[in-house]
Amino acid sequence: MINFKQWDGFEGRMWKEEVNTRDFIQHNYKPYDGDSSFLEGPTEATDKLWGVLQDLQKKERAQGGILDMETEVVSTLTAYGPGYISEETKDLEKVVGLQTDKPLKRAFMPFGGIKMAEQACTTNGYTPNPKFHKIFNEYSRTHNQGVFDAYTPEMKKARHNKIITGLPDTYGRGRIVGDYRRVALYGIDYLIEEKKHDFANTGDGTMTDDVIRQREELSLQIKALNDMKTMAQAYGYDISEPAGNAHEACQWLYFGYLAAIKTQNGAAMSVGRISTFLDIYIQRDLENGTLTEKEAQELIDHMVMKFRMVKFARIPSYNQLFSGDPVWATLEVGGTGVDGRSMVTKTDFRFLHTLENMGPSPEPNLTVLYSSSLPEAFKDYAAQISIRTSSVQYENDDVMKPVWGDDYSICCCVSATQTGKEMQFFGARANLAKCLLYALNGGVDVKTREQVGPAYKPYEGDTLEYDKVIDKYTTMMDWLAGLYVNTLNLIQYMHDKYYYEAAEMALIDTDVRRTFATGIAGFSHVVDSLSAIKYATVKPIRDEDGIIVDFDTEGDFPKYGNDDDRADEIALWLLKTFLDMIKKHHTYRDSEPTTSILTITSNVVYGKATGNMPNGRKAGEPLSPGANPSYGAEQNGLLASLNSVAKLPYHWALDGISNTQTINPDALGHSEDERVNNLVQVMDGYFDQGAHHLNVNVFGKDKLIDAMEHPEKEEYANFTIRVSGYAVKFIDLTREQQLDVIARTCHASM
Amino acid sequence: MINFKQWDGFEGRMWKEEVNTRDFIQHNYKPYDGDSSFLEGPTEATDKLWGVLQDLQKKERAQGGILDMETEVVSTLTAYGPGYISEETKDLEKVVGLQTDKPLKRAFMPFGGIKMAEQACTTNGYTPNPKFHKIFNEYSRTHNQGVFDAYTPEMKKARHNKIITGLPDTYGRGRIVGDYRRVALYGIDYLIEEKKHDFANTGDGTMTDDVIRQREELSLQIKALNDMKTMAQAYGYDISEPAGNAHEACQWLYFGYLAAIKTQNGAAMSVGRISTFLDIYIQRDLENGTLTEKEAQELIDHMVMKFRMVKFARIPSYNQLFSGDPVWATLEVGGTGVDGRSMVTKTDFRFLHTLENMGPSPEPNLTVLYSSSLPEAFKDYAAQISIRTSSVQYENDDVMKPVWGDDYSICCCVSATQTGKEMQFFGARANLAKCLLYALNGGVDVKTREQVGPAYKPYEGDTLEYDKVIDKYTTMMDWLAGLYVNTLNLIQYMHDKYYYEAAEMALIDTDVRRTFATGIAGFSHVVDSLSAIKYATVKPIRDEDGIIVDFDTEGDFPKYGNDDDRADEIALWLLKTFLDMIKKHHTYRDSEPTTSILTITSNVVYGKATGNMPNGRKAGEPLSPGANPSYGAEQNGLLASLNSVAKLPYHWALDGISNTQTINPDALGHSEDERVNNLVQVMDGYFDQGAHHLNVNVFGKDKLIDAMEHPEKEEYANFTIRVSGYAVKFIDLTREQQLDVIARTCHASM
Repeated sequence: MINFKQWDGFEGRMWKEEVNTRDFIQHNYKPYDGDSSFLEGPTEATDKLWGVLQDLQKKERAQGGILDMETEVVSTLTAYGPGYISEETKDLEKVVGLQTDKPLKRAFMPFGGIKMAEQACTTNGYTPNPKFHKIFNEYSRTHNQGVFDAYTPEMKKARHNKIITGLPDTYGRGRIVGDYRRVALYGIDYLIEEKKHDFANTGDGTMTDDVIRQREELSLQIKALNDMKTMAQAYGYDISEPAGNAHEACQWLYFGYLAAIKTQNGAAMSVGRISTFLDIYIQRDLENGTLTEKEAQELIDHMVMKFRMVKFARIPSYNQLFSGDPVWATLEVGGTGVDGRSMVTKTDFRFLHTLENMGPSPEPNLTVLYSSSLPEAFKDYAAQISIRTSSVQYENDDVMKPVWGDDYSICCCVSATQTGKEMQFFGARANLAKCLLYALNGGVDVKTREQVGPAYKPYEGDTLEYDKVIDKYTTMMDWLAGLYVNTLNLIQYMHDKYYYEAAEMALIDTDVRRTFATGIAGFSHVVDSLSAIKYATVKPIRDEDGIIVDFDTEGDFPKYGNDDDRADEIALWLLKTFLDMIKKHHTYRDSEPTTSILTITSNVVYGKATGNMPNGRKAGEPLSPGANPSYGAEQNGLLASLNSVAKLPYHWALDGISNTQTINPDALGHSEDERVNNLVQVMDGYFDQGAHHLNVNVFGKDKLIDAMEHPEKEEYANFTIRVSGYAVKFIDLTREQQLDVIARTCHASM
Repeated sequence: MINFKQWDGFEGRMWKEEVNTRDFIQHNYKPYDGDSSFLEGPTEATDKLWGVLQDLQKKERAQGGILDMETEVVSTLTAYGPGYISEETKDLEKVVGLQTDKPLKRAFMPFGGIKMAEQACTTNGYTPNPKFHKIFNEYSRTHNQGVFDAYTPEMKKARHNKIITGLPDTYGRGRIVGDYRRVALYGIDYLIEEKKHDFANTGDGTMTDDVIRQREELSLQIKALNDMKTMAQAYGYDISEPAGNAHEACQWLYFGYLAAIKTQNGAAMSVGRISTFLDIYIQRDLENGTLTEKEAQELIDHMVMKFRMVKFARIPSYNQLFSGDPVWATLEVGGTGVDGRSMVTKTDFRFLHTLENMGPSPEPNLTVLYSSSLPEAFKDYAAQISIRTSSVQYENDDVMKPVWGDDYSICCCVSATQTGKEMQFFGARANLAKCLLYALNGGVDVKTREQVGPAYKPYEGDTLEYDKVIDKYTTMMDWLAGLYVNTLNLIQYMHDKYYYEAAEMALIDTDVRRTFATGIAGFSHVVDSLSAIKYATVKPIRDEDGIIVDFDTEGDFPKYGNDDDRADEIALWLLKTFLDMIKKHHTYRDSEPTTSILTITSNVVYGKATGNMPNGRKAGEPLSPGANPSYGAEQNGLLASLNSVAKLPYHWALDGISNTQTINPDALGHSEDERVNNLVQVMDGYFDQGAHHLNVNVFGKDKLIDAMEHPEKEEYANFTIRVSGYAVKFIDLTREQQLDVIARTCHASM
């Protein structure tokens, strides 16, 4: 058993015998069931720093979204010396560390794909040093080259026709959450020692490919840990030993996260579940009298400020998929332990409170791990913050805990992973709505007229018969699932080969659990279309080439989102059928296949590529996001809609079921108290049914329309809304996406 | 079936239906059983070019072995424009193409290991551009880094203690012979087409790691083929279509080989079996009246001149292992077809004749595929060349043909591979002599005193008992075989990952057969030591630490190399036992394990690391090379020695059994005719017994001693001798190695 003087006052043994952050937390945290009255406002330093940062953000927006870009330095852990928000305020920063040498300056990250790194620069008016073109084409290969060299024509066609979309084949796959707390709890030297121990125990001497790969990966992890020390040293910190106080704990932990965002540009670069952990250090310092509440809040505010600054260089097509420059610096608060104790601490309040101290913000992607059994005061406070800022999402701890235990993190929008014990092979999604059209048209894409799917016999006859359609649909979906899984196998292989996440994996157990995340787009449209075919009369309309281009749907039919089992049963069938098809295939590194119903903002792009549907959705219109009911389908109010979504069993979609709802403040109540009470009640009811996720927006359409028309108004500068899976500043969306948000159902009644 | 106008006059169909060089050869070559009287001397151009080249070689030697080194350009297929032997003579070159921009200038090849590439420069007084250090350490990894990152401490220790030696972990593994004839026969475009077809048929859609790897490799091969066209274009040649005449055939084929040596610095970069193939083109031109014999010989001379110029930048420790700057540009002549016809053509004579037209030379490593059934005139001519130049080696076509067919090439010293259908994972060798000492000392290395092998109980007792020693030896050898195979698994994995031979593999069938070559060092010393233990009395001498450091051997014992079955049976046991131990392990990419008895000149370095042996060999003395009997052991003349070696079954050592013999000219006969006759008789007898290989040197010790003392004499400038597995200019050896050569048995009697 090891011991450090930095651990004085901490309880428990197991976490001293092995790297085990959870055990440390469980033995040392103090649940807090009080209210928010202890919270402190921002310090002068916080106001000053946040002021400087807001000016930079304004400048960034004024310049079209980019403040500065690197063109001469390839981002590595040690590529830069220290960087600060500003030279004048550097001494005020309680938590230091930038991705590059300057705030909001985007790093040059070619390992995912040199072409994309170059395009990210050139499309924003920057010119990367041409030497990098030669280096990363002639001397070194990148993830993107590897993938495209190995793709089959079928894969390229499916990708080009957007039946499989958003694939991480041009950038980092992201979604790997290092246990950044380990840096604070153990210091780098002990982590290196443990990884060396693992290295010595990797394989029994027989050098199979798997063993060799893992040995090399471990050596890269150890190198990354050493580089983290060098990186921290540039800022004057020695992180070889554990953090000795709350300030160091925040700083050490942030250095761990900084290592990740300096080396990877994954779509989602989540922070993880850190609040309860940090609270232990803060609580010790408060009790020792070495820290005040004001100072504690300042630490959290400054740390959160850093999370608000994370930026990556992206290409236009990426920004179309994921608008508003999200990084999914997802950070959880709340949750309960397996022993039943609430894991809410004062620091969980402090993190939510940053939305008041520094105003609303899309990042970090604040996520409440919700349970109706959480302390009432905390639920109330979270609801209050939601109502005030629309910047918080909720996930059901009661359904996730049995699967992932009580130390999971959300690694993107809604996907849980056990912190430090698991990594995910992120795999974007398959457009099941397009797949239905392929089933009817014998694999021909109605938009491009290409033969994308297998050339099965098209649907014949003048009326769509349910059984016949289901038969064709399952056959086509089976093709799609196989192609999709194998496309992902290839992508994940190349990512490991050319863009391995050494810094993140260094903070995760060597004997890691790997999930293989697939996803579904167009969910509600398939459900409603099948329902129309089953319960109404749908006549296909064919063009001169015999391609079904539209549908004549007569009669009414039940729609998903109204708590009507006739439609909702189809939803269950669809999810289960797709999952089973995914599961039967070989997956890279024997990872565990999962799926999600989650589209993020890419529902707009996906919709553009999808033709007319039998449920009446017109070609080109956005798909409804995530597991949301189709636009206009919800006719029976918020609760009925939530009930429909809640029927989807979480364990069939372990990667998450995203639901985004907007409630008119008036529908929630007439006073803030009433609204808070009602929102908490809605969520208690929704999550007690086993639902997984809820994005809560509280505003009316009028506000959206006004913000779209008058983005210059000061009140809209930080106006944040929850979209599918993340939060975004509304004025950072394209007009098309703003219109999509406005078109979504805004519940005016419960 | 495809057809090209360049194929006019060629017979056969199958080779037009698929890439099948062998089928083309078998349908079109004309066996020649006449004598050498048709051969022509060098043209004026040849003399002039060879004169320039010899001056450069002299300058190179005067500068300590290096004429020039690249420090600014990373060698790739297209890194350089055209280069010539000299500007003044460039129009005289019938076959053009240099590795770099200048003759004998060594390329900068970092992909095998940046450290080694840098050291190769710095130890020779050159400084590579420091940018490459950053590029190949921070942005890109190299083979060497991958290997050392994944090695186990046990592997490093075994390597450091030289019980496993010569591992290709710091440079290219080599030994892959592209079917360079394909470039001439088919042109690049058709080869690309065929590889694209293979790419389309790689995998059934299920993307396992193996399928993904192969798809990426194929795409790299296709890129390499395209780059070959670009490379040839720089010299003014369009190689997209087949060669139209003998001149083009030589040039196209050489471009294929040039592609290999521009991109790989493998220890052995063999040319392969090209003589019969080229003869078809020469014969057609001769018959068409578009080529004279003088011009035909000039083509071969100029091509061979290019093979004599191949150079790589090496580090000092590499040069210690493989002295005299060898590249194993091995090139075969002779052999017979599976249909029984001799495959000897006039061009087989022409290649041997280059040793007369341009004097003796170590490269290309000329190898006669021998059979007593070869035309007598050819056997005589080869023997004559051997006697005059000591630059030729012989390998038994009768034992190789049943295993590899009639279109194999020798890929290094003695190792056969089917041309265009096979590649080899080269694996250097295990020192079985050291292993015997480990067995006695419980895994402790007598030289370094490190515990290298497993800490088994050391041999106890005052006399070595055969059964007890065999028991301990097989146990230790079993450990060594396992460690050795797994070390190689790791090396081959990393080589494929970081230093894949795209250009060579592009000229090999996609569905390639892979062999996994291991090797034995110290063979004769183990055999004789075990014989001493069995037939004499061997008492171990222990030092104060109880380590056995020497042996007191009383009485006589049979020795390997005297046609004495008592010793020779131990030799068979040793080979079979080791092979079985190798075979039981997992091998990378399911390659077929083989072994060799072959040490090259590394016998000197291996000997330095090996302690006193029971057979009387003293610590530090060179091991005998390859399968050669121990120095001084051969007491019964050349034939008895050959008989002992011939007992080793080739199919137990499919990677080759190297035997190097030196015969005093007087022992062979008093006139050249008599010597030729006797040498042919010796070889007929030796190979008819099933022996595999013979290096033939014909000179006396006096000449060696004189050359060592007076290297400046003009007659020794090109004095070439055969050492284990290759030929070398005697004056290029270190004095230590020269003394070793002198110490070897020079048979004064048959």
